[in-house]
Amino acid sequence: MSKPVRARDFGLSCGNLQPGSRNSICDVPGVQVGHKTLVTGDIRTGVTAILPHPGNLYRDKPVAAVHVINGFGKSIGFVQVEELGVIETPILLTNTLSVGTCATALVRHAITGNPDIGRETATVNPVVLECNDGWLNDIQALAVSEDDAREALKSAAPDFAVGAVGAGCGMSTFGFKGGIGTSSRRIMLDGTEFHLGALVLSNFGRSGDLRLPDGRVVESLTPISTHPEKGSIIIVVATDIPLNDRQLKRVIRRSGVGLARLGAFWGHGSGDIALGFTTANRVRHDEGASLISQRALNENRIDALFEPMADITQEAVLDALIAADPTTGRDGHFRPSLRDAIDRSPLS
Amino acid sequence: MSKPVRARDFGLSCGNLQPGSRNSICDVPGVQVGHKTLVTGDIRTGVTAILPHPGNLYRDKPVAAVHVINGFGKSIGFVQVEELGVIETPILLTNTLSVGTCATALVRHAITGNPDIGRETATVNPVVLECNDGWLNDIQALAVSEDDAREALKSAAPDFAVGAVGAGCGMSTFGFKGGIGTSSRRIMLDGTEFHLGALVLSNFGRSGDLRLPDGRVVESLTPISTHPEKGSIIIVVATDIPLNDRQLKRVIRRSGVGLARLGAFWGHGSGDIALGFTTANRVRHDEGASLISQRALNENRIDALFEPMADITQEAVLDALIAADPTTGRDGHFRPSLRDAIDRSPLS
Amino acid sequence: MSKPVRARDFGLSCGNLQPGSRNSICDVPGVQVGHKTLVTGDIRTGVTAILPHPGNLYRDKPVAAVHVINGFGKSIGFVQVEELGVIETPILLTNTLSVGTCATALVRHAITGNPDIGRETATVNPVVLECNDGWLNDIQALAVSEDDAREALKSAAPDFAVGAVGAGCGMSTFGFKGGIGTSSRRIMLDGTEFHLGALVLSNFGRSGDLRLPDGRVVESLTPISTHPEKGSIIIVVATDIPLNDRQLKRVIRRSGVGLARLGAFWGHGSGDIALGFTTANRVRHDEGASLISQRALNENRIDALFEPMADITQEAVLDALIAADPTTGRDGHFRPSLRDAIDRSPLS
Amino acid sequence: MSKPVRARDFGLSCGNLQPGSRNSICDVPGVQVGHKTLVTGDIRTGVTAILPHPGNLYRDKPVAAVHVINGFGKSIGFVQVEELGVIETPILLTNTLSVGTCATALVRHAITGNPDIGRETATVNPVVLECNDGWLNDIQALAVSEDDAREALKSAAPDFAVGAVGAGCGMSTFGFKGGIGTSSRRIMLDGTEFHLGALVLSNFGRSGDLRLPDGRVVESLTPISTHPEKGSIIIVVATDIPLNDRQLKRVIRRSGVGLARLGAFWGHGSGDIALGFTTANRVRHDEGASLISQRALNENRIDALFEPMADITQEAVLDALIAADPTTGRDGHFRPSLRDAIDRSPLS
Repeated sequence: MSKPVRARDFGLSCGNLQPGSRNSICDVPGVQVGHKTLVTGDIRTGVTAILPHPGNLYRDKPVAAVHVINGFGKSIGFVQVEELGVIETPILLTNTLSVGTCATALVRHAITGNPDIGRETATVNPVVLECNDGWLNDIQALAVSEDDAREALKSAAPDFAVGAVGAGCGMSTFGFKGGIGTSSRRIMLDGTEFHLGALVLSNFGRSGDLRLPDGRVVESLTPISTHPEKGSIIIVVATDIPLNDRQLKRVIRRSGVGLARLGAFWGHGSGDIALGFTTANRVRHDEGASLISQRALNENRIDALFEPMADITQEAVLDALIAADPTTGRDGHFRPSLRDAIDRSPLS
Repeated sequence: MSKPVRARDFGLSCGNLQPGSRNSICDVPGVQVGHKTLVTGDIRTGVTAILPHPGNLYRDKPVAAVHVINGFGKSIGFVQVEELGVIETPILLTNTLSVGTCATALVRHAITGNPDIGRETATVNPVVLECNDGWLNDIQALAVSEDDAREALKSAAPDFAVGAVGAGCGMSTFGFKGGIGTSSRRIMLDGTEFHLGALVLSNFGRSGDLRLPDGRVVESLTPISTHPEKGSIIIVVATDIPLNDRQLKRVIRRSGVGLARLGAFWGHGSGDIALGFTTANRVRHDEGASLISQRALNENRIDALFEPMADITQEAVLDALIAADPTTGRDGHFRPSLRDAIDRSPLS
Repeated sequence: MSKPVRARDFGLSCGNLQPGSRNSICDVPGVQVGHKTLVTGDIRTGVTAILPHPGNLYRDKPVAAVHVINGFGKSIGFVQVEELGVIETPILLTNTLSVGTCATALVRHAITGNPDIGRETATVNPVVLECNDGWLNDIQALAVSEDDAREALKSAAPDFAVGAVGAGCGMSTFGFKGGIGTSSRRIMLDGTEFHLGALVLSNFGRSGDLRLPDGRVVESLTPISTHPEKGSIIIVVATDIPLNDRQLKRVIRRSGVGLARLGAFWGHGSGDIALGFTTANRVRHDEGASLISQRALNENRIDALFEPMADITQEAVLDALIAADPTTGRDGHFRPSLRDAIDRSPLS
Repeated sequence: MSKPVRARDFGLSCGNLQPGSRNSICDVPGVQVGHKTLVTGDIRTGVTAILPHPGNLYRDKPVAAVHVINGFGKSIGFVQVEELGVIETPILLTNTLSVGTCATALVRHAITGNPDIGRETATVNPVVLECNDGWLNDIQALAVSEDDAREALKSAAPDFAVGAVGAGCGMSTFGFKGGIGTSSRRIMLDGTEFHLGALVLSNFGRSGDLRLPDGRVVESLTPISTHPEKGSIIIVVATDIPLNDRQLKRVIRRSGVGLARLGAFWGHGSGDIALGFTTANRVRHDEGASLISQRALNENRIDALFEPMADITQEAVLDALIAADPTTGRDGHFRPSLRDAIDRSPLS
C-alpha cells in the first residue's frame, strides 16, 4: 500500500492539539481497520471493518455509546448499545441497502468464534452503519456479499487506506468525492498519553457549502446542486481513555460541532450518526464476580475530549476529501476530488 | 385453515372492554398478517409479516412509533422511525439471527414496488423485530431465507393463524410453548367505532411466574427454571384512530402494563419492544404541498386507549399460549401447552 | 413517634424476598427522611426530605438516575441528572405548586453549606418532585414556605413516619387516603448483604382499580369515580449496591411493574416518575485526579435488583395506604383509609 | 426606548436568507417580549419574559418542544413538554438560582387567569430557563423577586430591548458582555410568508474562541481565560409555521449548528438548551371533540427551516454581543463590548 495522501499534506488541519503518530483512529492501541472495495461495471461500493481490539469482542465487550445527530439512517444494533452500553462485534460500514447482508456476516463471524451463541449463551448484537452511495453506485444491485464483509474483517490492520476505498468507494461530500477519512489527537491525563481517534464514512453536505478551516468556501467543480442535503455521515470514535458509556455519549455528541464547522446544518435527508467505544473499559461476557471495578474520567476534565472530538471529526472529513480520487460511477455520474479544487502546495 | 383455539375459548379475557369481531389486530381495517413456518429436523422457526395497509407503503407511509421496554434486542429500523415518525415497509418478525436476511428481503420487496429507490429518490428503511427461539430451534442454522420472508408477505390476509406459527414457531413463554397471539378492542370516539389491536411474538417470562387474569398462578409442567428471564416479546400495535407519533408512543408504552400483569418484570435478558402504527394518518412520499393536514386525538381522551392497550397486550400473550400446540424441538427440548396445564372447560 | 402501622401489619407483602430490618428506604445505610406536615383550615400539605447520605451532598455527589413513566409532572432538576448522572442536593417532595419554593430552599441550603457556589465554583441543581394534592388541600394557597422545607430537612432521621405526613398529607390513591410509604429488600452479592429501598409519594390510581397482592379488588368506600386516573406517584429509590447511572436507570424503570400490579395503567394525567441514587458510587466535586475508579454491578446479575424493585414499589404504595389515616380536607372532601375497607386481622 | 444597536449595524449577518421586518422573534405575529432589569450594588441580573401569543396560554396551549444540547442546566418544565408537546405558560428566563422564584410567579400568574387550576382542572406547568450570571452578578443574593417576574410579564411588547437587559443583564459570552439577542428569517411556503425567529440568552463560550461570520477570530480585550467553557445559552424559538412537536424538535436541534459556527464546542459546564413553539398549532385545554385537526409541514421541506435555524441562532448571539454595553459588576468584574473590539463602520 503506497502512502496515502492526507489532509495535512494539503495544509488542512483542525485545531491546535497534536495528532497521534498516524493521525488515525488506529493511534488508539489495538484498533484495526480493513476494507473490501467493489469496483466493476456500475458498482462502486464496499465494506469497511473496524475492530476495537484484537481479542474476542463477544467475550470482552468494549464500553460503547451511540449518538444520533439526525436519524435519517438505517443502522442496526443501536437498541442494545443504548440499553447495555457495550458492543460485542466488530463495526461494519457499508451502503444503505447492504446492512442486512453485513449483519448476517457479523452473526456468522461471531458464531465461528463463539459456538455457544444462541445455544448455551445469549445471541449476538451485530453493529452495522451505512450511507447511501446511490449516486455513484448501482445500489439496487445489492452487490455486497457476506464474503465481502468477511474479507474486510480479515484485512483489518493498524495501517489502512483512506479516500475512495471500502464503504467509501461510492460516497460523495459537498459535491466532491467523499469516502473514508481519519484523524486523532493526543490527550495527556495525569501524566499519561492517551488518544482519541475518529474514522468517518463521509457522504454528506450540499455542493457549495464546504468551508475550509481557514474560512475559504470551496465550490465544487460541478454545478451547485439544487438538491437538498442528502447522503449521510458515520463517525466512528475510539479512545483508550477510560470512560463510562454516559461520558462516551457526551464526547461523541461533539462530532456534530465538527460537521457544522465544515458547513453542514445536519440536513433532513442525512443520516448523521456517531458510534464510540473505549478500549479501556470492557465488560466480560463470562464475568464471575457480582461487583466489578471500572475506571472513568473525572467529569470536570471532559472538555479535554470535547474540543478534540470536534477537531478530529472536521479533519477526518477533510482527510476523506483530500484522499479520495475523482470517480466516475453509475450512468457516468462523476465526482471531482477536492485536491483538484483548492489552491495547493502539498507539503510532502 | 381451521378455526384456531383462542384464549377466550378457555375463559381467558382481560379487562371489561369489547373486542373487535375477530379479536385481532386485523380488526383494524386494512391490516393483514401472513406467516411462513419452518419445521424440519432441528429447525423450529419462521417469519411473520404484518402489512399495515394494502397499498404501497413506501408511497403512503403510516405514522408510527417505537417504544423500548427493555432493549436487550436486535431490531432494525428504529433510528429512522424515531426521527421521522413513520414506517415505509411491512413489518417482519423472525428469530434473532435472521434479522439481516429479512431486512434484505424487505429492501428487495420495496425496490420491486418502487424502482426509483436509491436512484431518483431516497433509500428505504426496513423494519424487522425479533425474539430468540434458540431453545427449540437450531438458531445457528440461520434457516430463514429471503424467499421465506417473501412467502410470509405474500400469504398476508385479514384472517391468520395464531400459536406456534410463523416467527412464533419456536418461541417459549413462562415455560410454556409461546408464539403468535392477538387481541383487539372497540373504542367509540365522537360516535364512531374505532379499533386498537395488538399482535405479539411472545417469548418471555420465567417458568412459574405466569399469573392468569383471575389471579391464578400457573406453573409450567416442566420444572421451574433457575435460569433468568430471557427471551423477549415483540408487541405490534395497530389502530385506525388518528394519532400523531407522540401520542402513538404514549399508547404503546402501556404494553408494559400488560406484561407486568402477566407476571413479568421486564427481565434483563428480554428484549421487550413495542412498535405501533395508525392507518388513519399517513405521510405521502411524493407530497406536493408544503403544508399538510393531519388529525389527532384530543389528548384528554387518551386514557380511552391506554387501558385497552394494557388489556390487549395481556390477552394477546394468553392467546399465544392457548393457541400454541406442545412442541418438541432441537435436541429433544420440549415446551408444553398452557392448554394442558389449566383447569378448563373450553367454551366452544 | 409511636410505631407506625405498616402494610405487613395487615398481611400485605409483595414477593418472596426478605425486607431489611426497617422495611424502609433507610435500611440503606446513611439515608435519612424528614417531614414537615401542614394541617390548618383548608391546608393539607407538606414537604418530605430524603437525604442520601449525612455528608455534604454538593461535595460528594451520589450517582443518580431519573426515569419518567408518564411525564404529566412538574419536577425540577432532571435535565442535569440526565446529563451528569449525579444529584448534589437532598431530594424534596411537595405539592405541585410548591416546587419553586422548595427549589429556592434547596438553593439556600446548598449555599449555606458551600459558600463558593455561584462564585468560585458552579451553581447547584436542586431536585424537587411533586404530586397534586388539590383534592384535599387548598393547593392555590401555596402554603408551603421555605422555612417548611428547611424544617423537613432538619428533621431527617433514619426512622420516619409513613402515611398522611409530610408531602403525603393531602394525597389520595385509588380513592383512598394515600401519602408516604416505604419498603426495602435485602440483596446478597458475593457474600455481602446490600439493600434496595423505596419511598413513595402516592397519589395515583382510579377508585375501584386497586388490586391487592392476593388478587382481591378493593373498592373504595366512596363511589367509584368517573374521573380519569389523575394524581401522580413519585418513587425515590436508594441502594448501597454500586451501580453506574445507566444501571440505576434500568433498575428504577421496574417501578412501573409495581404500579401495574396494583391496578394502574399509568394514566394520562398522572405524573409517574422515579428517581434513584446509590450511596456506593459518589462523584467528588473537588476531584483532583483525572481518572477515577468506580464499582459497578455485573450486568448479568441485575435481575437480582429488577424483581425487588417491582416488589418494593408495590409494597410501598400499600404501606402508604395502610398507614394513612382517613382524612377530611378542603371543602369537606374526604378520603377513607384502606385499613377500614379490607378484611383484616392485624398481625401486631 | 431608543433604537437599539443591532448586529447588522456592524455588518454582522448570517446566511443569505431575508430577515423579518424587525429581525426579531417578534416577527412571528403575536409574540411579545418583556424585561425587568436589576442593577444595584453588586446586583446585575433580571428576568426576560416571552409570551407566545396574547391570549390565555393555559386555555390555548402552543405546540412546543425542547432540545438539550448540553444538559448542565437547571430549567424547569421540561418533563411535561416532552410528554405532551405543549407549553401552557409564558416562558421566563432568569439567573440560575432564581428559577424557583420565577416558577412560583408563573404559577400565581396562571391561577389569576385560570381560577380553576388545581381545583376543578389540572395544575400548571411553569417553564423557566436560566444561565449563570455569577461573574458579574452577586447570584447568591437571589435578588429576583416574584414581583420582578410579574413586571417582566407586564412589560411584554412586540418591540423590546436587546443586549445587557432583563435576564441578560449580567451575562457574558466569549469573554465579552453577553445578554439578550434576537434574529428572524422569512420563509415562503406555498406562496405564504412565514417567519422563524429566535431569542437567545447568551452566556457561553471561552474567551478567544469567538469567530465572526467572515472567519475573523476576535479576541476579547480581557486576557484569554484559562477557565473552561462555562455559562450557558438558552435559545427560544418561535414560528408561525404549523409544525408538530416532533418537527419542532428537529428544527430547534439545529441551533447547535449556529453555536458551533460561533466557535463553541458545547462545553461541559455550559447548559445549552433550546425551547421552541409554534403559534400555528395550539391545543385547547377545554377541547370538546375527541378528534382534532392539525396542520404540519411536509417533512421533505424541513430543510427550509433547518438552515435559517442555524443562521438565526448564530446571528442572535452576535446581536446580543453588539447590543450589550460594557459592564462592570460584582467585585469590579468587567466585561468589554464586542463593539469596541472589532473593526467597524456602523451602517446606521
